[in-house]
Amino acid sequence: MREKRFIEDLGGRPAPYASIDADNELQGAIERTGTPGILKTRRDGYDGKGQWRLTSAHEAAGLRVPNAGLVYEGLVRFDAEFSVILVRGRDGEVRFWDSPQNVHEGGILATSTLPPSDIVAAQVGEARELAAKAAEALRYVGVLTLEFFAAAQGPVFNEMAPRVHNSGHWTIEGAVTSQFENHVRAICGLPLGETRTLGRIEMRNLLGDVAAQEVAILSDPAAHLHLYGKAEAREGRKMGHVTRVS
Amino acid sequence: MREKRFIEDLGGRPAPYASIDADNELQGAIERTGTPGILKTRRDGYDGKGQWRLTSAHEAAGLRVPNAGLVYEGLVRFDAEFSVILVRGRDGEVRFWDSPQNVHEGGILATSTLPPSDIVAAQVGEARELAAKAAEALRYVGVLTLEFFAAAQGPVFNEMAPRVHNSGHWTIEGAVTSQFENHVRAICGLPLGETRTLGRIEMRNLLGDVAAQEVAILSDPAAHLHLYGKAEAREGRKMGHVTRVS
Repeated sequence: MREKRFIEDLGGRPAPYASIDADNELQGAIERTGTPGILKTRRDGYDGKGQWRLTSAHEAAGLRVPNAGLVYEGLVRFDAEFSVILVRGRDGEVRFWDSPQNVHEGGILATSTLPPSDIVAAQVGEARELAAKAAEALRYVGVLTLEFFAAAQGPVFNEMAPRVHNSGHWTIEGAVTSQFENHVRAICGLPLGETRTLGRIEMRNLLGDVAAQEVAILSDPAAHLHLYGKAEAREGRKMGHVTRVS
Repeated sequence: MREKRFIEDLGGRPAPYASIDADNELQGAIERTGTPGILKTRRDGYDGKGQWRLTSAHEAAGLRVPNAGLVYEGLVRFDAEFSVILVRGRDGEVRFWDSPQNVHEGGILATSTLPPSDIVAAQVGEARELAAKAAEALRYVGVLTLEFFAAAQGPVFNEMAPRVHNSGHWTIEGAVTSQFENHVRAICGLPLGETRTLGRIEMRNLLGDVAAQEVAILSDPAAHLHLYGKAEAREGRKMGHVTRVS
């Protein structure tokens, strides 16, 4: 809720939403905002966890609202998803990486691709302006990521991550300076590194049991394989990613 | 001594040399091989340590030969220095990175540059052939580096390093796959990564107290700074390196 109000105060455009603090507010909030929509916990949600997709208000009848409260968001009709990844130094300097076009599957990031489609490219400017304002308002230092929907009305703010972000993992091989290095440079007060993209990029997350794919990925001369060393390969769990630079 | 004989057996060309096992062999070895030359310990020498440069035989008069023995090498007149860096997989597949031209100062690698000069480029083929034979003969798996002098008579073998090598550090940002990643791929029996060079390269070692240079290096948009986290910056000690890709 705070995030959405903060973005609105900066002139940004979040999805239509309603705050729900108690069970008896649920129906009204959904009817006011419209269906379909997504009911979300306000805390600890990630990768589609803590979310319920609703196609009508009566589906919410049996749900019990957690104490920390919920937010209900009307579903946004969009043409594409993208993110703005920036780094802000201690001295206030802001640098952007090129914006990847993102595809989510089941609430989890599946791919980030560069360059993005023309629809996305046309909205990056406005989205960057908002992202820079957000970083400035927070006196933020480090890498900050804002996710957007490219919609008919312009970029619709989805959410922000005050950190390096999965949709920026491609910067390890695909940019002059990675999001990780620039995050460290920023918080150490060192000069920021160049963020230029080095080619056409496709970053794909590796979910669940991907062991069988590893040799095929390593046989692709454009592919860079990253495995996170997680002990257990649960379904839908991010086990690694592969970045293709061409 | 073993290394030099091994290379000769493969048809390679080391610098003229003589084996010295006892004090009374020193003068004869030097006179037979000629001056100037370099007297080297057979074990534990690196970065110019365990080496004495001699301009005449009588300079050796006062030296006491260590128990492990010495080798005396006639100085080679050369136009340039370069290295061949290869990776050999468990299945015997060999891949080469482009050969950097190396400059040593005081026995320590100062810079590695790509592309190398025409003089070096003309000798890389013969040097690679020898390097591949050496890897094959040793049934070597992993990254192997051979250092050469580009001389009038052709590539003169200097020494080999059965490991990733300082003159290959540029591959971290300057090649599709780094020497470190391909070493791991090789010993794990995984497919080898592409070794293609990504631009013009200059790798420069950072010796001794380099703290004052760090901000300047980080301000250079083409520069990638690596610091090794060594606690003490002794004179001539390798504290890190910087790779410029343009």
